[in-house]
Amino acid sequence: MNDVYTDTIAALATAPGEGAISVVRVSGPQSLMIADRIFSGKGAPPSQQPANSFKHGFVSGADGVADEVILLLYHAPHSYTREEAIEIQGHGGSAAAQRILRAVLDAGARLAEPGEFTKRAFLSGRIDLLQAEAVIDLIRARTDRAAQSALEQLSGTLSLSFGHLYDTTLALAADLETTLDFSEDELPESVTNDIEAKLKQLESEFKTLLSSWHEGHLLREGALVVIAGKPNAGKSTLLNALLGKDRAIVTSLPGTTRDTIEEQMVINGFPVRLTDTAGLRESTCEIETAGIRRTRDTLSHAELVIYLIDGSAPRDPYDSDQLTALHKKSVITAVSKSDLINNDTYQPSAPDQSVIYISAIKNDGITELKRQIIAKLGIHEGAHHQATISERHRRLLISAHKDILESTLLLSRSTPEPALAASRLRLALETLGEATGRIYHEELLNNIFARFCIGK
Amino acid sequence: MNDVYTDTIAALATAPGEGAISVVRVSGPQSLMIADRIFSGKGAPPSQQPANSFKHGFVSGADGVADEVILLLYHAPHSYTREEAIEIQGHGGSAAAQRILRAVLDAGARLAEPGEFTKRAFLSGRIDLLQAEAVIDLIRARTDRAAQSALEQLSGTLSLSFGHLYDTTLALAADLETTLDFSEDELPESVTNDIEAKLKQLESEFKTLLSSWHEGHLLREGALVVIAGKPNAGKSTLLNALLGKDRAIVTSLPGTTRDTIEEQMVINGFPVRLTDTAGLRESTCEIETAGIRRTRDTLSHAELVIYLIDGSAPRDPYDSDQLTALHKKSVITAVSKSDLINNDTYQPSAPDQSVIYISAIKNDGITELKRQIIAKLGIHEGAHHQATISERHRRLLISAHKDILESTLLLSRSTPEPALAASRLRLALETLGEATGRIYHEELLNNIFARFCIGK
Repeated sequence: MNDVYTDTIAALATAPGEGAISVVRVSGPQSLMIADRIFSGKGAPPSQQPANSFKHGFVSGADGVADEVILLLYHAPHSYTREEAIEIQGHGGSAAAQRILRAVLDAGARLAEPGEFTKRAFLSGRIDLLQAEAVIDLIRARTDRAAQSALEQLSGTLSLSFGHLYDTTLALAADLETTLDFSEDELPESVTNDIEAKLKQLESEFKTLLSSWHEGHLLREGALVVIAGKPNAGKSTLLNALLGKDRAIVTSLPGTTRDTIEEQMVINGFPVRLTDTAGLRESTCEIETAGIRRTRDTLSHAELVIYLIDGSAPRDPYDSDQLTALHKKSVITAVSKSDLINNDTYQPSAPDQSVIYISAIKNDGITELKRQIIAKLGIHEGAHHQATISERHRRLLISAHKDILESTLLLSRSTPEPALAASRLRLALETLGEATGRIYHEELLNNIFARFCIGK
Repeated sequence: MNDVYTDTIAALATAPGEGAISVVRVSGPQSLMIADRIFSGKGAPPSQQPANSFKHGFVSGADGVADEVILLLYHAPHSYTREEAIEIQGHGGSAAAQRILRAVLDAGARLAEPGEFTKRAFLSGRIDLLQAEAVIDLIRARTDRAAQSALEQLSGTLSLSFGHLYDTTLALAADLETTLDFSEDELPESVTNDIEAKLKQLESEFKTLLSSWHEGHLLREGALVVIAGKPNAGKSTLLNALLGKDRAIVTSLPGTTRDTIEEQMVINGFPVRLTDTAGLRESTCEIETAGIRRTRDTLSHAELVIYLIDGSAPRDPYDSDQLTALHKKSVITAVSKSDLINNDTYQPSAPDQSVIYISAIKNDGITELKRQIIAKLGIHEGAHHQATISERHRRLLISAHKDILESTLLLSRSTPEPALAASRLRLALETLGEATGRIYHEELLNNIFARFCIGK
């Protein structure tokens, strides 16, 4: 497919801003010709140099020397795009890089669109669409664990899983289509039974892959963890204690409302969006009621609620009511000010293993709380390098899964419909093909590569 | 000097933030050993690969694959630092680069200090101190012209100029010292005269080099251009017209006072800090008087004042008074609203070539105004690639120049003092040596390299 492209693209490939080195990347059939035109160094011109070598020299443009550079030479198909390609490493900062880029564009390249290098890598068949998506996930990764997951996907693990689903579905569709050549009497029942069994096995494989979405979603978007409880229960202190122990605070975002503050932190390699809320209590004050309404709204979106009970205050049935109201959510019950608990204050009604006692002052219980946050979010402990599916993959899998289920139903009818079942499988195949890019259309590619930065 | 370093340094060399590519740079005797330890790819281990080649593969650390990378191999002395060195090109974004850096540090490197790679390049003798300073100037360059000037300095033009001053001074000091072996009677007068003439020639070379400071200063810091004039003369409109025509607005900075607004723009490759001021007029209002005081303060720091006269209003002697008061500054007189000038309004007292008539509405005179700004700032038109001296160089040159002058005076006395004159020249030599780094001390290096970013 490589010969589709007759033009050569170029872009700054390093992040803008002050750095020691910047890299301008060029790909396409004219790459080496452009190198010959703008580069001067010792020895033979770039196009006569061996592949996978680099040279020190100077890039010159219309107004003289653009920068002192290192020129990297890639020969097709041994490059990111499988095309002829060069990379020009110059001084960091914007001015030098812009001078190099201008010289390259003046010599015949055009500015690349976002993700166009990776798009060419996909269209040349070097990587599939799942791997292309992993590239931008890796660049965007905010935590080590997210980077690991993206690397796993880049290496092709997810492609293998999807490939297996595709191949199995394809084989079953073919098997079904074969049965159509026979009359119902001729066909031994064992054949249909065998196909049905295989379809059920396939279904469960769909479910396994679908289950990785949750972890991937948390890795990409971060989990929303809300701290709730009565006013003065110690929610803000707990927020600070959680943040203060972990140096990986990413940024402090002002909440959408005056009453909720969102902080980002990393627990066990996972990004967590930690939100403090206005205290929950019945109120006749209009403003406070509005604040509490917002709190309930935040609670409804929470992946996890930490409900905090004031350990230094007498037991209040209000807390139990709130916990009952939250029964549909994933909740950790925590008792604050554990150093102040005595016979007059909070007493658990029964020895409750699931309650965590914390003292922000003594730093008691914070580590245990973090451990439970990870556990309750359904994240596996420790480093494990598993590719996870994205929202796009999930949508495709759900759709294909539905077709597989339909197909199974059509076969298990009192009068089986193998022709309809087979066409359902063909539909599932088309959907699955969109995941890896076996089947693609321009709009799909545009949607995927629009997420990329220029230069990748 | 290379063998002074037994440790290997590493740092992220690309700007932080989202980009397609990031580069981790490693330099020092253990570089190739570290590459062997953390890199896996096809073929022989990195240390067995040819210099100036790159390989595709994977970097692995304690917790598995850190990233898919391109590894560049430099063999001493053909590297930036003249040491063994590697560069590891990985995916952009922070997570992947940090994973690579961690693997490198775990394998035996230590994190580099700011500018430490360039410091090693200087200490190894690959570049002098002037060239090292050009590296950071190039990275910091905000305009093309600043980048050109830094490139010129990097190529050694300024080093040649300083070298010439040094060599000439050294030769003259030696000549003078030779005369000390003779009694006054033995020495032909022509010898002393010759030395005196050469000293005067040297002096003028100092002056030429010193004169490049002005342009360098403007390139590095930007020129402060202040728009002044009576209220309603059209100052803000002019500011907008100047900015609007030029897309290279860098940023809008709120002024230090409510009454002055600073905008950054680029004219003819030069960064200009354009400041609008409160209108100048006598006032009894306390707040307005305070604003005008600030305006006068801004005016006193201006590199250039554009004094704007309202062309649609009757001639006002106040404007002439203000222009008289500004006689010590570099001033451009401009008449606004030139489309409204008629017999009842502003009339130049005599055909005045130096006045520029502008109409922001008709966009008349703006280009000419820009041309005059550049001319009045003493900047040469068009692209010329000249290295310019910095504040540090200027200080050294002034000090050495003073010693040359003293030396000349000592020789031209009725009783010449060649011994004292020679020792003055030796002082000048020491000062000049500090510019290129022939003579250096730890504090000097620390001051220079502290300006660098990590990774350069």
